[in-house]
Amino acid sequence: MSRRDALAFLSTTGIAALLPRQLDLLSRAFASSPLRVNGARLNDRLGALAAFGKNAQGGVTRVAYSDADRQAREWTLSLMRDAGLQTEVDAAGNLIGRRAGRDDARKPILFGSHIDSVPEGGNYDGDVGSLSAIEVAKALQESGTQTRHPLEVVIFQNEEGGLIGSRAISGELAAKELALISQSGKSIGEGITFIGGDLTRLESVKRSKGDIAAYVEVHIEQGGTLERTKTDIGVVEGIVGIDRWDVTVEGFANHAGTTPMDQRHDAMLSAARFTLAVNRIVTSIPGRQVGTIGRIAAFPGAPNVIPGKVVLTLELRDLDAAKIRRLFDRIVAESKAIGAENGTTFAFNETNVHLPALTDHRIQAAIMRASHDLRLSTRIMPSGAGHDAQSMARLGPAGMIFVPSVGGISHSPKEFSRPEDIENGANVLLQTLLALDADFE
Amino acid sequence: MSRRDALAFLSTTGIAALLPRQLDLLSRAFASSPLRVNGARLNDRLGALAAFGKNAQGGVTRVAYSDADRQAREWTLSLMRDAGLQTEVDAAGNLIGRRAGRDDARKPILFGSHIDSVPEGGNYDGDVGSLSAIEVAKALQESGTQTRHPLEVVIFQNEEGGLIGSRAISGELAAKELALISQSGKSIGEGITFIGGDLTRLESVKRSKGDIAAYVEVHIEQGGTLERTKTDIGVVEGIVGIDRWDVTVEGFANHAGTTPMDQRHDAMLSAARFTLAVNRIVTSIPGRQVGTIGRIAAFPGAPNVIPGKVVLTLELRDLDAAKIRRLFDRIVAESKAIGAENGTTFAFNETNVHLPALTDHRIQAAIMRASHDLRLSTRIMPSGAGHDAQSMARLGPAGMIFVPSVGGISHSPKEFSRPEDIENGANVLLQTLLALDADFE
Repeated sequence: MSRRDALAFLSTTGIAALLPRQLDLLSRAFASSPLRVNGARLNDRLGALAAFGKNAQGGVTRVAYSDADRQAREWTLSLMRDAGLQTEVDAAGNLIGRRAGRDDARKPILFGSHIDSVPEGGNYDGDVGSLSAIEVAKALQESGTQTRHPLEVVIFQNEEGGLIGSRAISGELAAKELALISQSGKSIGEGITFIGGDLTRLESVKRSKGDIAAYVEVHIEQGGTLERTKTDIGVVEGIVGIDRWDVTVEGFANHAGTTPMDQRHDAMLSAARFTLAVNRIVTSIPGRQVGTIGRIAAFPGAPNVIPGKVVLTLELRDLDAAKIRRLFDRIVAESKAIGAENGTTFAFNETNVHLPALTDHRIQAAIMRASHDLRLSTRIMPSGAGHDAQSMARLGPAGMIFVPSVGGISHSPKEFSRPEDIENGANVLLQTLLALDADFE
Repeated sequence: MSRRDALAFLSTTGIAALLPRQLDLLSRAFASSPLRVNGARLNDRLGALAAFGKNAQGGVTRVAYSDADRQAREWTLSLMRDAGLQTEVDAAGNLIGRRAGRDDARKPILFGSHIDSVPEGGNYDGDVGSLSAIEVAKALQESGTQTRHPLEVVIFQNEEGGLIGSRAISGELAAKELALISQSGKSIGEGITFIGGDLTRLESVKRSKGDIAAYVEVHIEQGGTLERTKTDIGVVEGIVGIDRWDVTVEGFANHAGTTPMDQRHDAMLSAARFTLAVNRIVTSIPGRQVGTIGRIAAFPGAPNVIPGKVVLTLELRDLDAAKIRRLFDRIVAESKAIGAENGTTFAFNETNVHLPALTDHRIQAAIMRASHDLRLSTRIMPSGAGHDAQSMARLGPAGMIFVPSVGGISHSPKEFSRPEDIENGANVLLQTLLALDADFE
């Protein structure tokens, strides 16, 4: 007897209405329910979504608030309606699709992701999680499964531009951010209006800590660990904290022909020593912390002038905010020693801090059990990238399910996840949600 | 009896016209002639020239072909006329002021410099040599001194933009360079027309090897060696060769959060190692060679993306072209080792080659003797910067006289040379010219 048949049988007996707690226990017996998503449909739809903002390299440029973004959102909303979800565009421009619970007064279980991309992005980042969430809702509809908790599929807007939609919900979006210019060329405020949000009611989307029963998100790993270790599913233990600084190295600009090597205060030479020091310090202790110099400019920036100033970015990430701070302290100390060598100085201006967000241990366990029942191997790992799940973790227990990225490539037209891995991820999401629905308050 | 009185006396006797060779010998007896420039006038005029293109930092922005450049040229021409020179603007836009020689069929002795500046430049680079040359002509006029050789004061146009005026004369200016955009925003061709040149007759300014008797230029050192060693006069042994390359480091751009440190092909890390290697190799052997990384950019250039590509400039300078080549070969070899460490590659594209230009030993000796007679200390040294003298060295014997730069600062509003040092330089120029006039064919 399938779970669906069992529920249908119980429903006709009237027991379902009378003994909800007993029914929950019965549901748990079906934890390894044969209910499955339609993997072919999911992967087909992933291919169809790739048409919106398609670029010549085979990826997409579908930055938030672009025409391509708006068109893809319309199409995605139609899939949500097709899955029987009650849809709305909230005041922040997030797409919400609600499915009633048997006990509809319960806090909702949320799941979803995003469909905006970076410029010159790929067809998997965000898309896999978004369409997996809708596919799960569709599978529940087709199987006639009603959960205890109300469910909400959420497609957050402008994840790539700084988790804008999810931070509007978690109350972390500052009013001044609305004036910032997004990749689309529109300000974030203009963008929200463009996609059907309502700035006058922006506060209405805020939720408080404890307002949600759980949040679960499927996402591509965006790293190469799962593929390299031949693991099916990544169980995310947390989303790393990110600290960013603009680092300014000041020396003295001078003529590159007439200034002897031993008389130079070369900011470029100090910047190079600094770059190597960051690499050495970050790799000097065990762990998965990373440090990156991603942008650099030398001033005045002519081949025949010794740079008097170099500006570069420093980014450190780890699950442990205290470790980030310890690494940074060592980097600052080392920069002083580097500067003393040739009379240059370093100044650090912190531009960005995202605190680490740990996932819920019960959700981690549910993902592992669901994977085990589906005969999928798992690996507990941090997420080195930021995700909307970190905003949702402020409101209640959150979890993330990673599927392998071939070659670890992401934010590129070359990013790719195998169809079978995507189907696995959606099935793990489905089973995890059913388990949480049974277990959680 | 002053030299002037002696010449006047001889002139009245008619001997001057009859016995030119004997007169030459007599002139040599006056090698340590008391003839001197008017240092106060020279320094006053230097202050007046600084008004053209004056900027808020106390320097000038008087790039070639700007309005400020054109106005300064008009003013400078008036000084040349005031010194009794027969002036013309040649077809390339150089200012030429001719003074007849007693034996006017002889090849001319040229001396001069330039008055254009870099953006945000100072009041000494080029100006000192230009006004010293005019002051020497004025001193000859006031003293009634007529040289054997005809003299030409030359104020070359657009030195800072690549020795444009002097290379037109030496025949090294390529036609295609006329289309290049100069710092003024005008193309070089438009600029030449703007300052009164004539593109249709550009070829007419070309001179051939052997067309000039000598060229001598006073210039500020633009380095700190003379000041640091308390030397009055630099005797330039040659102008260094300059080789420039665009260096492209290719790695693989990837997510800065999800790519473990040991899985990165970080072009920025390789660029930093390269920068240190250039510094180490250039300083590993004795000599005055220099190497500079003046410009750098990382791509895609975001704080959260590991750079997949870094482009930077490499410049090497030395008096010995073979030494530059040996250093470059070592740098290329080292770059291969650096690339092998993390799977990145280096490509070198040579963008610019200036061959070294050695000065004439007899002119060096004349500068030293003139300095000695003026009780000024000297030091033989290379010029690390390019100068119009290197173009003139293609046509005949050339020499350069350096005066100290305080703090070695140049190409900056802060560049400064002391009035007494400037006066010394002009007096050395005057005595050197008289000696060459006596000695040279």
